[in-house]
Amino acid sequence: MLPLSVLQKAAGEITSFGGAGQSVMEISHRGGDFKPIIEGAESLLRELLNIPPNYHVLFLQGGGMTQFAAVPVNIAGVEAAKEKRNCTYIDTGVWAAKAASEAGKYVNVKIPASSKDKNYTCIPDAPAPSADDAYYYICLNNTIVGTKWHKLPETGSVPLVTDASSCILSEPLDVTRFGLIFAGAQKNLGPAGCTIVIVRDDIAHNAPSWTPAMLNYDIHIKEKSLFNTPPCWCIYIIGLVLQWIKETGGLAAMQKHNSEKAALLYDCLDNSKLFKSPVEKSSRSLMNVPFVFNIEDAEKKALLEKRFLHEAALAGMVNLAGHRLVGGLRASIYNAMPVEGVRALISFINQFEKSA
Amino acid sequence: MLPLSVLQKAAGEITSFGGAGQSVMEISHRGGDFKPIIEGAESLLRELLNIPPNYHVLFLQGGGMTQFAAVPVNIAGVEAAKEKRNCTYIDTGVWAAKAASEAGKYVNVKIPASSKDKNYTCIPDAPAPSADDAYYYICLNNTIVGTKWHKLPETGSVPLVTDASSCILSEPLDVTRFGLIFAGAQKNLGPAGCTIVIVRDDIAHNAPSWTPAMLNYDIHIKEKSLFNTPPCWCIYIIGLVLQWIKETGGLAAMQKHNSEKAALLYDCLDNSKLFKSPVEKSSRSLMNVPFVFNIEDAEKKALLEKRFLHEAALAGMVNLAGHRLVGGLRASIYNAMPVEGVRALISFINQFEKSA
Repeated sequence: MLPLSVLQKAAGEITSFGGAGQSVMEISHRGGDFKPIIEGAESLLRELLNIPPNYHVLFLQGGGMTQFAAVPVNIAGVEAAKEKRNCTYIDTGVWAAKAASEAGKYVNVKIPASSKDKNYTCIPDAPAPSADDAYYYICLNNTIVGTKWHKLPETGSVPLVTDASSCILSEPLDVTRFGLIFAGAQKNLGPAGCTIVIVRDDIAHNAPSWTPAMLNYDIHIKEKSLFNTPPCWCIYIIGLVLQWIKETGGLAAMQKHNSEKAALLYDCLDNSKLFKSPVEKSSRSLMNVPFVFNIEDAEKKALLEKRFLHEAALAGMVNLAGHRLVGGLRASIYNAMPVEGVRALISFINQFEKSA
Repeated sequence: MLPLSVLQKAAGEITSFGGAGQSVMEISHRGGDFKPIIEGAESLLRELLNIPPNYHVLFLQGGGMTQFAAVPVNIAGVEAAKEKRNCTYIDTGVWAAKAASEAGKYVNVKIPASSKDKNYTCIPDAPAPSADDAYYYICLNNTIVGTKWHKLPETGSVPLVTDASSCILSEPLDVTRFGLIFAGAQKNLGPAGCTIVIVRDDIAHNAPSWTPAMLNYDIHIKEKSLFNTPPCWCIYIIGLVLQWIKETGGLAAMQKHNSEKAALLYDCLDNSKLFKSPVEKSSRSLMNVPFVFNIEDAEKKALLEKRFLHEAALAGMVNLAGHRLVGGLRASIYNAMPVEGVRALISFINQFEKSA
């Protein structure tokens, strides 16, 4: 979901951006019109997240999936496969597991902790890294199961790496705790098609010679994300979203806004007899709130879910099905979701419960 | 450049696409609203290019630069570096050379022909491939120097691979002559951020185990380009552009339209005393027309170029500087450029010549 004001501004400028007489979809990425767009987006991101100067900000293509390979290759890649380095991944669900699986092509992946035995309904205790770990990887917010790392693991001198795709800019984040943060744009930042990578300089220049150029951080750093044609339109929309966040009061305001929405929804679920949140309280996401019918009968449950989704859609509430891999229901309450949207959902849930 | 009608349609639907009540920038790529968009785009592309069923059509991220690695890895990649296979590249300028350089990480690149000694002002004669070549690579249209392969090399059973980024859909193309065609969207197809790959089935499933998932054609074929979140907005715009091409009369009409524009402009340059096209007639591009001042004095030339660009911009004609690597002037007359735009440029050139 994107702020309506952002979409309206984009629509107003779609045929002619600024004084260019061209659409942002048409201007040259090497021209003077695009430079302020990408530099402005980087500058706003640095300001909002308080990113120190020894971290680079990259605007790349290929989504989180590309970073699942780029992270091990750039931070821990080696010239010959037999010298593979060790890295730690914590298994908190599908996205962490996919990242670990992809990394396994390039590094020895160790998974010392997992919440799989609890259906991923909590964040597991995070053991300390081994001294020889090249990095320590967590998925900061788990969209499918609705968990979030409320307390970051202590990794000492081992760089902490995180996929923050689904929670970036939802609240303040201490960038200095991380060696690398990446985030696909499509949750809180803008349209699908751009991934932001924030990487500390000391771990950003070690890609082996066989690294595809497009996966090589060193190249993108040197070329300021303009090594090849960037996704100009996505970066333009990201800039508008960042401006909207700044004008709304920055990340402190986002945190207040998102905490209020999440508290309202979790309270509703915790007070319900028909519905429940499957997630342990200490691990709950601010962004993704899965919920299920609190009943045993699988057939009845499936029918109720179907009826819930149907009636919700009629009431104008879409995208409430749980992820296809886990089923159930899920409300995604990203930055752009207004508190009124959450209140409307709560009214609907309460009404559904009364009539069920 | 994009057709104005496409931009206007996109602007009209930007806050609410179809009946979805959501922007295309917001809808889920797994939802029912996006499926017809990507399937419709593929179907239109298959119809316009007459793509046979044994070719897959992929909508990927990462631009041509990503394909510079994906092509050798998928078609000729091997598990161990010491077994590298041979491949032939023809050097027709910067983009072919970059592709060859990237491929060199994964295959033994042979370059049996080059027009570098002629400043790339023509397409060189193409020698036959060796029997052990895994593929034979050409850059179909060379944007920077303004050349185009008018006659394709005969490669027998060796798959011909081409970067068609800057000429795809500018005229009919016999897909069956190729093993693989790729094209970044940003010239004739839509906004930057999506690359189309058309690949014959028999060469599409050979990526070695270390291939990053996002570079692996086999995965994208199985997942129908929905392995991860695709650049939905770009694909939506591509669909609108394809529809516009179809309504305009398809590729035969594009060829007529583009040939007319190019003929007008080359005639103007060939009849000018002040300007000239540096490109041999038999190799001239329909899309990119570089031109230079036909004078020796470098200083005077530079001043005239500066004045030309300045006065052209005042007359509303932008993007006429040659590529930063070669300088000079260049008119890019992609599909969406109307013949009136070319006539206006010709008037301007003639007027400039009179007053110079």
